Amino acid sequence: MTFPQTDRTKLKRLPKRGHFDRETVYSILDEGFICHIGFVLDEQPFVIPTGYARVADTLYVHGSQASRMLRNLASGIDACVTVTLLDGLVLARSAFHHSMNYRSVLVFGRATIIEEPSEKHAALLALSEHIVRGRWADVREPTDEEMKQTTVLRLPIEEASAKIRTGPPLDDEEDYALPIWAGVVPLKLMAGEPVKDPRLPPEIPIPAYAAHYKR
Amino acid sequence: MTFPQTDRTKLKRLPKRGHFDRETVYSILDEGFICHIGFVLDEQPFVIPTGYARVADTLYVHGSQASRMLRNLASGIDACVTVTLLDGLVLARSAFHHSMNYRSVLVFGRATIIEEPSEKHAALLALSEHIVRGRWADVREPTDEEMKQTTVLRLPIEEASAKIRTGPPLDDEEDYALPIWAGVVPLKLMAGEPVKDPRLPPEIPIPAYAAHYKR
Repeated sequence: MTFPQTDRTKLKRLPKRGHFDRETVYSILDEGFICHIGFVLDEQPFVIPTGYARVADTLYVHGSQASRMLRNLASGIDACVTVTLLDGLVLARSAFHHSMNYRSVLVFGRATIIEEPSEKHAALLALSEHIVRGRWADVREPTDEEMKQTTVLRLPIEEASAKIRTGPPLDDEEDYALPIWAGVVPLKLMAGEPVKDPRLPPEIPIPAYAAHYKR
Repeated sequence: MTFPQTDRTKLKRLPKRGHFDRETVYSILDEGFICHIGFVLDEQPFVIPTGYARVADTLYVHGSQASRMLRNLASGIDACVTVTLLDGLVLARSAFHHSMNYRSVLVFGRATIIEEPSEKHAALLALSEHIVRGRWADVREPTDEEMKQTTVLRLPIEEASAKIRTGPPLDDEEDYALPIWAGVVPLKLMAGEPVKDPRLPPEIPIPAYAAHYKR
């Protein structure tokens, strides 16, 4: 299953870095924590970072019902949602060929608000599980009032593309003879030692998903 | 020194998370690797990830002279440049109060192309040093032809704001009695063991900035 290449998603340069199959696009979306949502208000572009989750061919974002961004997005304006994973610094022999290894996804579309309570509940669960799998079963679930205070939007993933750079530097052939170290410094978002809430009673044990957090 | 709060940068919600002093804004810009640039083409928003650097009150981005994004930005259209650092997952006792710790910056402005060779050279050096300090002194510098193939844009940082969430979860008072673990799972982008270029001769030593990469 691949996404059609459109004017918006086609790569004009370095087309080899483009990927349009759902598996690649979704694996990147599923690994990221934060997306950057672009939208236009009075001809001015805004780019706002926010959490998200993917379920099947739908992207979910949520926030306060007072959020200006969500209200604007819910009005049906065009959005561009970008997720970027930085994988490494690419040190070439020439300044010119320095680069970064990354995987990014762009999704173009329009969001709509979720009104139906069971769909909204399922989306909130997905948003939570996307960040910390297993957490939802342990927490106090949202009250009706909290549900009312929360806006959840769905954006169908119909027009999307991934762009990936991977591997060693690519230098000009004559530069390989230079006595300059070259290679990749890998980068990865790592979880550290959990910091417990200062008000947490000491007898409450830390769950495995927090003690040994892994993406 | 603080940035003026404008219609575009003022926080409508959670104003306590807003920061407008240059020191805070610049420390976030200096820590990030990738910005997300938003711009509008034919009413369609685009959000593209790219490297950047800050020098004094100017943001630099660069790329191929064939880059559609840079060509469009250089025409003087409005841009929104966003940098986001993810610091942790905030696990509250209620699903509703889950959050993330983060630091983000939005810069609004218009970019112009750098034509003057010495300014362009200085900007490229800054872009390189922003990613790996010390690297520029070791590499083959750009040729005139490579300089021609590279477009560098400057964007004055005149309208900017930071947004920061930090610290433990904030639960509703009655939820603190629940027997649910709460706290923060810190996240940090970490460098791994460098992977040397397969074509690197074994006698070339690895420089300290790569062997022990630290932000």
